[in-house]
Amino acid sequence: MMSLLANVTAVNVLVVGATQGIGLAFVKQLIAENRIGHLFATYRSASTATELFALAEQHARLHCISMDVTDEVQIEQRIKDIKHIAPQLHWVINCVGLLHNGQQQPEKALRQLNADNLLNYFKVNSIGPVLLVKHLMPLLKHEDPSLLATISAKIGSIGDNRIGGWYGYRASKAALNMFLKTAAIEYARRCPNTVIVMLHPGTTDTQLSKPFQRGVPPEKLFAPERTARQLIDVMSDLSPADSGEFFSWDGSRLPW
Amino acid sequence: MMSLLANVTAVNVLVVGATQGIGLAFVKQLIAENRIGHLFATYRSASTATELFALAEQHARLHCISMDVTDEVQIEQRIKDIKHIAPQLHWVINCVGLLHNGQQQPEKALRQLNADNLLNYFKVNSIGPVLLVKHLMPLLKHEDPSLLATISAKIGSIGDNRIGGWYGYRASKAALNMFLKTAAIEYARRCPNTVIVMLHPGTTDTQLSKPFQRGVPPEKLFAPERTARQLIDVMSDLSPADSGEFFSWDGSRLPW
Repeated sequence: MMSLLANVTAVNVLVVGATQGIGLAFVKQLIAENRIGHLFATYRSASTATELFALAEQHARLHCISMDVTDEVQIEQRIKDIKHIAPQLHWVINCVGLLHNGQQQPEKALRQLNADNLLNYFKVNSIGPVLLVKHLMPLLKHEDPSLLATISAKIGSIGDNRIGGWYGYRASKAALNMFLKTAAIEYARRCPNTVIVMLHPGTTDTQLSKPFQRGVPPEKLFAPERTARQLIDVMSDLSPADSGEFFSWDGSRLPW
Repeated sequence: MMSLLANVTAVNVLVVGATQGIGLAFVKQLIAENRIGHLFATYRSASTATELFALAEQHARLHCISMDVTDEVQIEQRIKDIKHIAPQLHWVINCVGLLHNGQQQPEKALRQLNADNLLNYFKVNSIGPVLLVKHLMPLLKHEDPSLLATISAKIGSIGDNRIGGWYGYRASKAALNMFLKTAAIEYARRCPNTVIVMLHPGTTDTQLSKPFQRGVPPEKLFAPERTARQLIDVMSDLSPADSGEFFSWDGSRLPW
């Protein structure tokens, strides 16, 4: 694994949104790797972070960090905290994403659109991730190669949109893809050893997909462990030329 | 002109954002056409609508409507007002767009990103337009063909992004394109006589582009009148198969 980081002896990792689903699966697999130095794992609410906290009890290299990506002051402060422990990061994976919560559901039709819910999608799925990319540059700017991956979704591909619906989620992921494509161009100039990519995980058996799994054939509904493994494989095969691109779980490129 | 609407005898038009630039140029050209029945033209601030108001004094068919697209209650109310005058619309052109104002400028670099400014871009450039599309369906749902065009921008094409910068504007236009592509799919089912498209006007000599015209060759900086004429030509040539697509001022298709 991690051919991009082949010559790095202690790989420092940050997983954002690590309490459940794909994020937690990344933490479990990466903390088992001897090459990982520090692993920082963020949670928004302590009440849902029980499993992450239990894991941290067993691994001194695993640091739990409270962070709400919709609060820029908090992002800035927490990244400073990380810097006190590890001045350099090599691998960042942002798994935060909103599809539904107690207050909102993805819109099946225009009549369900609501400005506040749409803004929420943009805050969590688009603006939070690009603010992270803004504040992480100092930790990624070093001589070693580094990787900044964000979970996007194929449903955020405009060209691939055939069935419609899910207005806010789709638009916020398209905006995310544009933000990160633009950031990859800036990083290529200012922080050229960092590869920035967006990843489509495939439908994964998590709380995010739970209400929408009906009709998904079992072989296309991945366990979070499988998704994490597949995405680690994709990320490990990346090269600097891949920066700014959008990859599916099988390593194929996705259209915008 | 208007081959799509060839059999409509009194074409009712709505131009959103009609006080200046491209929107005002559309009003001037369309009101001169005998085939136009009612022309509704919206303004956000009366203080900048002097020229539009003067035009309305000369044309009884031209109705000025106050509308802030970031306020859904207002959108709903104003569309009801329009319906009292004209139960059907045939051609809607939304020209509202934010690139800069007294408070914000397009971001040259990540360090200039600010959550509030980014939210503003999404409110004006993405959410407002899709809320319009939501509330306009009853006026567009009739036996005649109709067209709903929204001014987007090539700079909102993710695939075409080579130089970076302008994070919020780019992402909000990518989100706009996704919203309207998704709406086109829903309209095809519920309101199948309406063609929905996004249009790139080319760099036009308006207040929006004013601070950024340096370096644009004179032959590539269009007068608003020319842009309106070119886009009317593009819109006139559209067919139902074009719904959900993104067109440049020369009629060519743009990548997402």
